[in-house]
Formats: sequence, C-alpha cells, structure tokens
Amino acid sequence: MKKKTALLFSLLMSVLLISACSKNTNSNSNNTAKTSGTTTNKGYQTTGKTTDSDYQGVIQDGKYKTNAARGVGISQNADNLLNLKSFESGMTALSKDQFSPNKYVFQEGQILSKSTIENWLGRVSSSNPTGLNPKDNGQKDAAKRNPIYVQQIEEQDYMNENNGKLSLGGITIGIGMNRKDYYQKEEYGSTYTSDISQAEMIKQGRIAAAKVLDRVRKQNGVSANTPIMIAMFQQAENDSLVGGSFYAYTVSKNGNEISNWNNTNLSSYTFPATATKSVPNDNDETSFEGFQNKIKNFFPNLAGVTAQGQYKNKTLQGLKVNITTQFYSETEITSFTQYVAQAAKNYLPSGIPIDITVKGADGTVQSFLSRQSGNGNFYTHVFSSY
Amino acid sequence: MKKKTALLFSLLMSVLLISACSKNTNSNSNNTAKTSGTTTNKGYQTTGKTTDSDYQGVIQDGKYKTNAARGVGISQNADNLLNLKSFESGMTALSKDQFSPNKYVFQEGQILSKSTIENWLGRVSSSNPTGLNPKDNGQKDAAKRNPIYVQQIEEQDYMNENNGKLSLGGITIGIGMNRKDYYQKEEYGSTYTSDISQAEMIKQGRIAAAKVLDRVRKQNGVSANTPIMIAMFQQAENDSLVGGSFYAYTVSKNGNEISNWNNTNLSSYTFPATATKSVPNDNDETSFEGFQNKIKNFFPNLAGVTAQGQYKNKTLQGLKVNITTQFYSETEITSFTQYVAQAAKNYLPSGIPIDITVKGADGTVQSFLSRQSGNGNFYTHVFSSY
Repeated sequence: MKKKTALLFSLLMSVLLISACSKNTNSNSNNTAKTSGTTTNKGYQTTGKTTDSDYQGVIQDGKYKTNAARGVGISQNADNLLNLKSFESGMTALSKDQFSPNKYVFQEGQILSKSTIENWLGRVSSSNPTGLNPKDNGQKDAAKRNPIYVQQIEEQDYMNENNGKLSLGGITIGIGMNRKDYYQKEEYGSTYTSDISQAEMIKQGRIAAAKVLDRVRKQNGVSANTPIMIAMFQQAENDSLVGGSFYAYTVSKNGNEISNWNNTNLSSYTFPATATKSVPNDNDETSFEGFQNKIKNFFPNLAGVTAQGQYKNKTLQGLKVNITTQFYSETEITSFTQYVAQAAKNYLPSGIPIDITVKGADGTVQSFLSRQSGNGNFYTHVFSSY
Repeated sequence: MKKKTALLFSLLMSVLLISACSKNTNSNSNNTAKTSGTTTNKGYQTTGKTTDSDYQGVIQDGKYKTNAARGVGISQNADNLLNLKSFESGMTALSKDQFSPNKYVFQEGQILSKSTIENWLGRVSSSNPTGLNPKDNGQKDAAKRNPIYVQQIEEQDYMNENNGKLSLGGITIGIGMNRKDYYQKEEYGSTYTSDISQAEMIKQGRIAAAKVLDRVRKQNGVSANTPIMIAMFQQAENDSLVGGSFYAYTVSKNGNEISNWNNTNLSSYTFPATATKSVPNDNDETSFEGFQNKIKNFFPNLAGVTAQGQYKNKTLQGLKVNITTQFYSETEITSFTQYVAQAAKNYLPSGIPIDITVKGADGTVQSFLSRQSGNGNFYTHVFSSY
C-alpha cells in the first residue's frame, strides 16, 4: 500500500515538475485541423494509425479529446496500477470484436463525467443515491461489513465517421469488480480485507451492470439503439504481479434489458508458477523454465526472469516476459539481447504474441524483443544513446 | 555529482537485491556448448545475431565471456553514464569498418586486466610507473595543477572463427580524453574544474595512444601483425545531456609506431538548440521544432520533447528523441504513440535512423518508435501488460 501511494505521489510530483519545466509557448499554429464542413461542429483530426488492428483516436482543436472522467482510473487502482493497464487494454481488445477498428474511430469516453462515475463508485446513501455499492452498515468485521463490490468504471466511445463528421456508433462500459475489498477500521490504521466469493462477485456485477446499462441508455446523446457493450472485470489483488481479467460481457443492441452474458474464459497468470498458483498448462511452465534456465546464468551475476501469461481456458494467448539484470557495458546489452532472441525462439511457445522487456538493475529498459506470431525470429531493439 | 553518485549507489543496491532474490539453482544443463574438437580448448558458443550488422558475442562454458576489466567503465563514468554508452557504442561502430561483423565475432576485452587499466588511468608515480596521467605537482589551482587527461580506456577483441576455434583477429582500444577535469581540493569539498584546450587534449591523447599501442603490442597473445585500432574519444561534460564523441582513430597493422591519424568529424548535439550551443545545420533545428510544437500540446498537460543528434561535419547521422508526458490511461498511450508516428514522419528529417522513446512522468518507458532509414512509416511498440 505505502509503496503504491509513494509511486502515485511521485507520479504527481513529476507532472508538476514537467509542467514547471516546459516552456509554455503554446504554439498551436501547426495544428491544421481538418474542418468538418459544418459551422456548428468544431474541427477534428484523428491520430492516424500504425497498424490495421489499432483504432485511430480523436483530436479536437489540436488536442487529444481526453476522457470526461480522466484520472479516475488511476485513483481507483492506485494500490495496483497493473489493474488499470489490464482493464483498459482488455476493454479495447473486447471492443474490437464488436466495433471493428476498420470501421470505427476510438474516442475516450465523453458521456459519463468524472463526478458521475465517482458517485456511482461510492456507497449508496441519502447524499449519494446513485452509489452502486451497498450502504455502510456500521460493521467493522471483515465478514459482517458490506464490502465495496464495484471498484472501477470506464467508458469508451466508438465513433462512426461520415462526411467529415463523427457520430456515436457504440459504447463500451467496463466494470471492475473486487474479489477482495481492502479497508481500514480507522484512518491510517492497519489494512483489513473482506473476501468476496466468485459467485457473489458475479451476482453483484450483474446487479450493477443492469443499473449502469439503464442509466447510460438514458444519457443525452445515447439513442435507443446505440450498441452498448458492458464488460465485467475481476480486479487482481493488490500484491498481484499481473492485472485482473475480463470474465464476461454482454452487448445491448437496444433497450435497457440484459438478455444474456458471454463468458470470456480469460485469466492471467505469472510465470514461474508458485506453490500456491500454477498455470493451466504444464507444458507452458516447462517451456518457460527452460527459457529461464538458459538466460539466468548468462552473466556471472544472475538475471531475474518472470512473465505474465494470458489464458483462454487452458490455451495460452500471449506472453509478456520481463528480464532484469545488472549490465556493465553497452556491449553486454547487445550480446545479451541477441542471446535472449535465440533462447526465446528455441524455448518459448510458438504461434502466440510474445513481448520481452530487458531492464537494468535500476529498472531502466535497455532492450526489447517482440514476435507477433509464428516460430521465427524476434524483432529486437537495443535502446542506445549518442 | 550527488545525483549521479546516488544513481550509482542505487544500481549497486539493486544488484545486491536481485542476487539475494534469485533462486540459485544454477542449472547449466541446457547449455549445450559447441565443442571445439580439441581437448585443450574449452567449448564455446556464440550469442547468435538478430541483424547482419551486429556482431555475435562469445559464450564460454555457458556464460558470457565478460570483459577482463568489467566495471571500470562504470566507475570512470559515474558522473555521466552517457559517456559510457556513447563510448562503447561508438567503439563498436568504428570497429565495424575495420573488422566486419560478417567475418569477425565480438569478444569483450580479455588482454588488459582491471588492475592494468586502473593503473594506466592513474597518475604516474614511483608506486604507479605505468600511469598515463601526469604526476601530482601539488598545486590546487585549476590552471596550475596537472589535470587528469586520460579518463577511460577499454579493450574490445575481434575474433576469427576457424574449425570451431576462436583466435584473435584484431583489437580496438578506446581512449576517453577529458576537456574538463573535475577535482576536489579536499575530500568531500567543492568540485573545481581544470579546463583542457582541444589542442592540448589532442596532443596528450597522441602521447597516451603511442604508449598504449606499444604496451598492447607486447602483451601475451598479441602478435607483431595483429591489427590494433586505437580510437580517441572526447568525454562530454558531467552535466551534458548527450555523451561524448570519437574524434580520431588510427589502425596499426604491425609494429608499435603510429603513422597517421584519421579524423572522424563526428560530434553530438542536443535538440532543441540552446542559447550557448546550436546544432551545425539550422534546417534540422527547424524540423525538430516543428515536430516538438506538434507534439507538446497534444494533451492538456504538456509533453517534454528533446533529442540527441549525431553529426558528421554538418550532416545529421541520426536522432534519438525522448518524449516525456503524464499519461492517465493505456488508451492515451496508444493514441499518443500513433500521433507521434505521424508527426515524426511529417516533420523529422528523412533518410537517417531515428529512435523515439516515450516515457511517463515517472520515467517508465511506455512506447517506442523506430525507423532505420527512408521517409516511410515508423515501427511502433506500446509496452503493455496483462
């Protein structure tokens, strides 16, 4: 908890420093916004995209159109920012099936304001009638108190582009649900935990989703037949080295009733397996350990090798490998990176996207390797300096 | 100075932590070393290589063959580690012209030991007769004392591979020369600076190079006709945001006389230009500023945009761009990266290698973009997490 708070604090401090350091000349003259052809609509641009599978984002008046609730995700996930990363990348990934990047432009959520979402995330009370979490029943005991079930909510908008005008084509709402609710009995006191069963999380998630769909459907700018996807995410524990996963979603084509839920069967794991948590497929663990053994003794000093893996049922969907070691020279980094590329090709599973990040002992990224699919060579990049 | 010392300290602490955390199972069983066919030579492997323009490195008994003077570079450049990065990558780049990566295998220097190099980097005295720097004349005044001219020395070996055996095919020795020598008048006291003129640096560098060539030629394992390249590097100042550059080199085919020196005409600059230091070509500065203006106001919070550029005479050879901003979500990182890719394509000079690293306010790398040449699209990668 303290470490995460310190991290958040240093993030905020850094932004203040950067703001203070930058020269505020504020020259917008280069932002030649594409005008939409109407006088009522302001001009917009899109970011362009570098791969077909990515969305373009919306720029208005030369600036990125940020989320109306910008920053809520960081404060709601301050105890484990991995949850924010996996929540947002997971939402985007699920949205691609409903709202194809070839057809839709991505826009940060504009309908739900920061205060709206913050109220929804609170406990229901006379002063906060829209709270999605149960009222405070006054109990301090972990099993007797009403836990916070709904931890985070985020909106993503998917826009149709016609004749230089953008119109809302679909909405994705992600809802992050707790399996563990961390709380203090008194301010600055010890942290206690209320456990929430999987069945209870699913039940409470459905109750919240029904309310959210009904409320979003009634917002200005949302029509009776705007497609709304609601995606349910299970938050990872605060000390987890991998973020949570989306476990279910529903798509409302119209109206405010949820007719059915689809399970994603997605879950995330860390490698190497631990005594308490093994990965769904032993072969993957064996592959990883072969790779790890090949790497860790390359230098006289040891290299730490870990990974995050995402599974759909028992099938590995991708790996994010992290390697940390102490380098004593640039040439060591180059040699190590090439060696890792060979070892990854020989040992790691084929046919899935694999990213490998190599960091120095101080946490600085020194090189990275990536392969999208197949069993061939990795793209490698060593971060260098003049 | 203090910041750099703290950085070095945290590097050392981190390595201790990593060593302590790693499970020391020490399984070498996967290292199926290629045996050389002789019983006296131990088996070796090479790292493999990911691009034709890189060297393979040497692995012996399953471990990387580290430099015999491993770590000297870090302590000699502790006040500005950019000097170490530019020194080593510059040495490797110059070596490629003499010892082609298609023909030679790279081996970290094995001939000059750590104590040998440390003695050479010291002042000459009765207890250190091999010191390349002048004796301490007892003066404390910046202009009257004898400065430290030679700041760092490193050896790189280039190996021929024949019938599964490696033999020394060439040596590169880099010598880093000071234009400013930082010193204290008393322990823990203020830092003073002795300035060294360019002419004096070149003169002293040639004196040191002649001694180094003579000594290296006489080492065990070096024959009368082993090619030895000696490359002269001007150290950047401690507060420089770009490392130093190699200014000259010579190649000795045999013997211990240096017949001629080649100027590299290389120098490194930072963008944007400052009041005291402008880049050699105004057009590059204009391009950079166009890019910077396009980027910095993308978010409501400002983005800091700087770059390092390497010049050969007045021609830009490459750019390393650094962008730092505060991100509030994963989707912001993706959108920003795509936008940067477009802006870089439109504004930055074409035909040269360009790397762009995007960092969050806490210094963590969030994405990177790279183009080797031409004027087409950038490769982009967003660092994500499950």
